[in-house]
Amino acid sequence: MQLIQRFYPVIMDYLEQNSFVREPKGLYEPVDYIMQLGGKRLRPILALAACDLFGTDYKKALPAALAVEVFHNFSLVHDDIMDDATLRRGKPTVHEKYDTNTAILSGDVMLILAYKSLCETADKSLTPRLIDIFNETAELVCEGQQYDMEFETSDEITIAQYLKMIELKTAALLRGSLQMGAVIGGVEEDDFYHISEYGRKVGIAFQLQDDFLDTFGDNQKVGKKRGGDILQNKKTWMILKAYEVADPERKNALKTWMKDKTGDEDQKIEAVTKILEDLNIPDMTVALMKKYRDEALDHLTKLTGAKAAVSGLEELANLIIVRDY
Amino acid sequence: MQLIQRFYPVIMDYLEQNSFVREPKGLYEPVDYIMQLGGKRLRPILALAACDLFGTDYKKALPAALAVEVFHNFSLVHDDIMDDATLRRGKPTVHEKYDTNTAILSGDVMLILAYKSLCETADKSLTPRLIDIFNETAELVCEGQQYDMEFETSDEITIAQYLKMIELKTAALLRGSLQMGAVIGGVEEDDFYHISEYGRKVGIAFQLQDDFLDTFGDNQKVGKKRGGDILQNKKTWMILKAYEVADPERKNALKTWMKDKTGDEDQKIEAVTKILEDLNIPDMTVALMKKYRDEALDHLTKLTGAKAAVSGLEELANLIIVRDY
Repeated sequence: MQLIQRFYPVIMDYLEQNSFVREPKGLYEPVDYIMQLGGKRLRPILALAACDLFGTDYKKALPAALAVEVFHNFSLVHDDIMDDATLRRGKPTVHEKYDTNTAILSGDVMLILAYKSLCETADKSLTPRLIDIFNETAELVCEGQQYDMEFETSDEITIAQYLKMIELKTAALLRGSLQMGAVIGGVEEDDFYHISEYGRKVGIAFQLQDDFLDTFGDNQKVGKKRGGDILQNKKTWMILKAYEVADPERKNALKTWMKDKTGDEDQKIEAVTKILEDLNIPDMTVALMKKYRDEALDHLTKLTGAKAAVSGLEELANLIIVRDY
Repeated sequence: MQLIQRFYPVIMDYLEQNSFVREPKGLYEPVDYIMQLGGKRLRPILALAACDLFGTDYKKALPAALAVEVFHNFSLVHDDIMDDATLRRGKPTVHEKYDTNTAILSGDVMLILAYKSLCETADKSLTPRLIDIFNETAELVCEGQQYDMEFETSDEITIAQYLKMIELKTAALLRGSLQMGAVIGGVEEDDFYHISEYGRKVGIAFQLQDDFLDTFGDNQKVGKKRGGDILQNKKTWMILKAYEVADPERKNALKTWMKDKTGDEDQKIEAVTKILEDLNIPDMTVALMKKYRDEALDHLTKLTGAKAAVSGLEELANLIIVRDY
């Protein structure tokens, strides 16, 4: 993909030039470890792309790009403690490799390092606006994580609440990455709105796809075992929608499975997947993803100050739903 | 004390006007809880005093003052998890009252809220400099906490390393509070250096006093049981100095007590206190505090742009060692 091919190597170079290793090693080595674990680098790519879109040298957005990637990884380090996760990208999580105290404190310093990187943006007249966007984004992500944790123990989640939660937890940072890149790129107010809405809607579609792939993805392509969310009884949009449209019999069956913690794992995954398929949930999910994708694309057509082609961002939005599951 | 009498009520009013209670409550109630637990509000008082000192309305420094107080409380919330502390100011710590996940995430959002408050400083041309100071300060505090944790399990701490640790963990934030207040107050470069050094040295003296009072303070005045650091085998300046000056016999006795975890608590406190007294450590500690206090006061005399009396900051520095232990 054009956008990824162009900017991924730029991000990786910048990451290499900005090593996190320094004293005290006990604090900064875990930062280096998580930052090197890989990932798609989607958020920094969005920051560079948004800057480039408005005709400004994307290199000016590199400090902001690094800031959003460091922030994203900070949130993974602390979320993994809260979720008691042992693996991240196939490797031990920070609190598993080191310990929980290290993961807390190294995570804290990452949040500070993210602000620090953002402040290295050359044009200091932009700093107040960039920090305001960063503050708002970071706060929304924390609120999203809080709702996500609360939803685990609540039986009364509505579809609207779920969509709001993923808007905060996932879409806010994609939006914020684009916003910061666009501001560095010199965006005007109307376009700022449209690029923000593009990011918000792509972000929601992105999380819906993540949930979808967890249950219906091709194991090999997705790179992890299918059904993790089902085993964790996660109330995704798909499950909530199934409750809404199911006949009483299937609804009861689904409820029983979603409380089950003791039975055979493969049997549970198969049974829940079957119920979702019988209720046509996969098609409904793809349709919803398409709806958010189309709304996102529509905002791109409304940009008036774009100097570069929007094709990269179009491709990105399309990538979310055109791939072969 | 003049400075405290003048600014403490101002801080409390501003805290009341800026409530942290909002949705999701699960995230923000713990923030409100720790912010209401009390404390001396020393850091925000320093921020207001430094602004006032350079002839600027101290109200302009209120957002920065709130920022340093929120940051300080953020660090307490996360440190209390790491130290497994159950009580803070005589009340349950955040992770005890709620749970560890809540304390992690509410702490995270506090760090963001601190930046957010700092960004509310009216003169936006100051924002880049204020955020730079805040970033540096926050990073040093994290590094200090890391060294503090590492020292717990190390037998090879030098006095220089201990002093460096408290400079990072404690003095950096006192210095940063003064620096931000001074910048809002319109400080010139030379005075910025002297007010920073005043803060750094007062901060070191302040922590030495904290350690001193933990062992030699009047239970009633200090408000907590004497000897907590001894029971935790904390290698404070006093203990490290005792190792340096002790005869072999007392050195061995001290080493044995400092490894003891099973015996009678009161007996241990009494024995270690006795060794320190025999070695004249209390007088040496007070002398060192006085040295840092005098150096701090000396920097106040070098200020050339101070518009208000420095008497408040003098009093504050004096307060550290003139009180009756």
